[in-house]
Amino acid sequence: MNAAHHPTADGLWHNIRLAAEPAAGAAAIAVRDGRIAWVGSEAEAPPSFTRGPRHDGGGALVTPGLVDCHTHLVYGGLRANEFAMRLAGASYEDVARAGGGIVASVRATRAASEDELFAAASARLANLLADGVCAIEIKSGYGLALEHERKQLRVARRLGEAHGVTVRTTFLGAHALPPEYAGRSGDYIDLVCTEMLPALAAEGLVDAVDVFCERIAFSLEETERVFKAARALGLPVKLHAEQLSDTGGAVLAARHGALSCDHVEHLSQAGVEAMRAAGTVAVLLPGAYYALRDTHPPPIAALRAAGVPMAVSTDHNPGTSPAMSLLLMMSMACTLFRLTVPEVLAAVTTHAARALGLHETHGLIAPGVPANFVLWDIQDIAELAYWFGQRPVKRIVRQGRIVTEKAA
Amino acid sequence: MNAAHHPTADGLWHNIRLAAEPAAGAAAIAVRDGRIAWVGSEAEAPPSFTRGPRHDGGGALVTPGLVDCHTHLVYGGLRANEFAMRLAGASYEDVARAGGGIVASVRATRAASEDELFAAASARLANLLADGVCAIEIKSGYGLALEHERKQLRVARRLGEAHGVTVRTTFLGAHALPPEYAGRSGDYIDLVCTEMLPALAAEGLVDAVDVFCERIAFSLEETERVFKAARALGLPVKLHAEQLSDTGGAVLAARHGALSCDHVEHLSQAGVEAMRAAGTVAVLLPGAYYALRDTHPPPIAALRAAGVPMAVSTDHNPGTSPAMSLLLMMSMACTLFRLTVPEVLAAVTTHAARALGLHETHGLIAPGVPANFVLWDIQDIAELAYWFGQRPVKRIVRQGRIVTEKAA
Ligand SMILES: [Zn+2]
Ligand SMILES: [Zn+2]
Repeated sequence: MNAAHHPTADGLWHNIRLAAEPAAGAAAIAVRDGRIAWVGSEAEAPPSFTRGPRHDGGGALVTPGLVDCHTHLVYGGLRANEFAMRLAGASYEDVARAGGGIVASVRATRAASEDELFAAASARLANLLADGVCAIEIKSGYGLALEHERKQLRVARRLGEAHGVTVRTTFLGAHALPPEYAGRSGDYIDLVCTEMLPALAAEGLVDAVDVFCERIAFSLEETERVFKAARALGLPVKLHAEQLSDTGGAVLAARHGALSCDHVEHLSQAGVEAMRAAGTVAVLLPGAYYALRDTHPPPIAALRAAGVPMAVSTDHNPGTSPAMSLLLMMSMACTLFRLTVPEVLAAVTTHAARALGLHETHGLIAPGVPANFVLWDIQDIAELAYWFGQRPVKRIVRQGRIVTEKAA
Repeated sequence: MNAAHHPTADGLWHNIRLAAEPAAGAAAIAVRDGRIAWVGSEAEAPPSFTRGPRHDGGGALVTPGLVDCHTHLVYGGLRANEFAMRLAGASYEDVARAGGGIVASVRATRAASEDELFAAASARLANLLADGVCAIEIKSGYGLALEHERKQLRVARRLGEAHGVTVRTTFLGAHALPPEYAGRSGDYIDLVCTEMLPALAAEGLVDAVDVFCERIAFSLEETERVFKAARALGLPVKLHAEQLSDTGGAVLAARHGALSCDHVEHLSQAGVEAMRAAGTVAVLLPGAYYALRDTHPPPIAALRAAGVPMAVSTDHNPGTSPAMSLLLMMSMACTLFRLTVPEVLAAVTTHAARALGLHETHGLIAPGVPANFVLWDIQDIAELAYWFGQRPVKRIVRQGRIVTEKAA
């Protein structure tokens, strides 16, 4: 797991095909000091690179390292028992009476030590990284109190260091109302805006701020208060928007220059237009759609027509999307949401990076960016979404190192 | 890959929990000469086993080796290009005009050598086996001519030997009408019954016989002719039944004592009753349901009420179910078809074995059967279906050997 143990990827990666232009013939990528120094046709590789160390790609297709731009990876416990209960006929109320639901995750996360949270999340992260993920977003939101949100975000930072992967932390204090604030939603939002967020931001634990805006969660007005607090601190915002109904969250988020609106199953045309104008990414989460047996897909045709960038992510979380594979999400995005193959490839690379504000350094293969790319054991790039339940990774170069990630 | 290279599993597997009775505390399994010699509470293990070699299970949950009872694993080419075309807006007609559809697989299978078919299927098989699959069914049906059906079935046998896994071969000559018999379906069924099946059976290549009975494939009457030919040779039958419509295939199959009826999305109550009376297994194929975006699930409640054994399989095939993981099928069977956790575990072990006529030797952990079992890195058996896109295998014992299967 320790990144320093992995060999350097410096040298010329040749005999590869770039997924972006597979017909262009043999390509090559030069890596120097952990960054991409040059990329192009193998025949045109400058002598300064051809004379150095060489890595034969064996004709593999190469994509940028994948980006998983929406996860709730750090939590205590898991909720497989609820899953089994529901299948055995229990209602949501039965599950709640048995202590289940999101409060179960909050309770378990609060009870867990930082090291316990780290160990559990680290094993899950290994699964995601084994798909070729080279940058990942991790949200808080199961602590719902300063010390516990801090614990989640510190674990997220530690995961990035331990695994040698780019981690973007998102503060999601406004994920759910903690039990001790029942009926006092306004007071909790006060706490989020005036205590939790400023403290955590000052500690360097917050790269972005997110809110769950929904009838069953926080209102538009509460969402805007959090956004204003974030922007006062110079932090970008994101939104869990229009998953269950059209609340107008996307329009609000776009007004605040949000990096992304996520879920968006019930996004209105006004929301589409606002996102287009603001350059906000639509993050599609087919894992939650699948697990919830949702039947109302996001308005893909409208997003496509407007040119809103679409990303796809796992939404990994213990309740509504225990998804362990971004490749599987590519299959689901194509199969369930009808994304095309080029769209789904952009959705887990360049557009996912954009949803994290990382589009200049991640999700692309270009001179100057950190070396994050994946060699695949496939003939046709469509195979990444065509097969389901596989992991045709031949080699991963992450942060300039050749990693052999073992799924847990 | 060579089975002989894997270390023997002989000895006492202790410090494990049996998935069938996880609350019973520490259990143990004794393996001798590649077979299960004893299973029970660790405290009660006979001295003859406790004194021999020991394998510490580290508290792992243990299930029987999984059984994938319906696959079309051996074929030439793949159809990722059609997948991409369809997503880009091409109709089925467009795909057919471009040479796609099942005829593309038939053409590529006929063109491939036995070694080429073996190499491609072997890589796919490795993915399935990495989930803990210890017995698998492989159908012919992309050759549709004696020499090419023979080639498929010979490859299936070779795969079993090379990977050290139980393979059951199923002759599916009546899968589709080959182009050279267009408009002469009766003549083709004659060929299947009087030439292909007898020849292949005489060569020991056929463990069971299957037919695709559907409006777009073969009629009830044609199906019955194949069944009669099979039974005259003493071979059990199976049926691709009621996937797209209720043709009455299940009732016919039950009348012929079929091992299984597979797909059964449109199974009638009469079909359910006939299957129950005949002891025929209902093989559910959620991968095809998912990939085809079907919205008409099989009648699970009726099957459950009647006590028809339900199995779940990948239906791995290049057209409608490029599924690479039986664990993912467990997730889909629970999520899409609402099987309970105990049902889905039986569906990939004992009931799947029954669908192959292997229920006395596979899909169970009992004295005398070949040692096929899996140690899982999970706390709760529900996790096998709760997470999706993962492979929490800790150790696989297959045919009495400790295997470390590498997914391709
Ligand atoms: Zn989320
Ligand atoms: Zn089939």
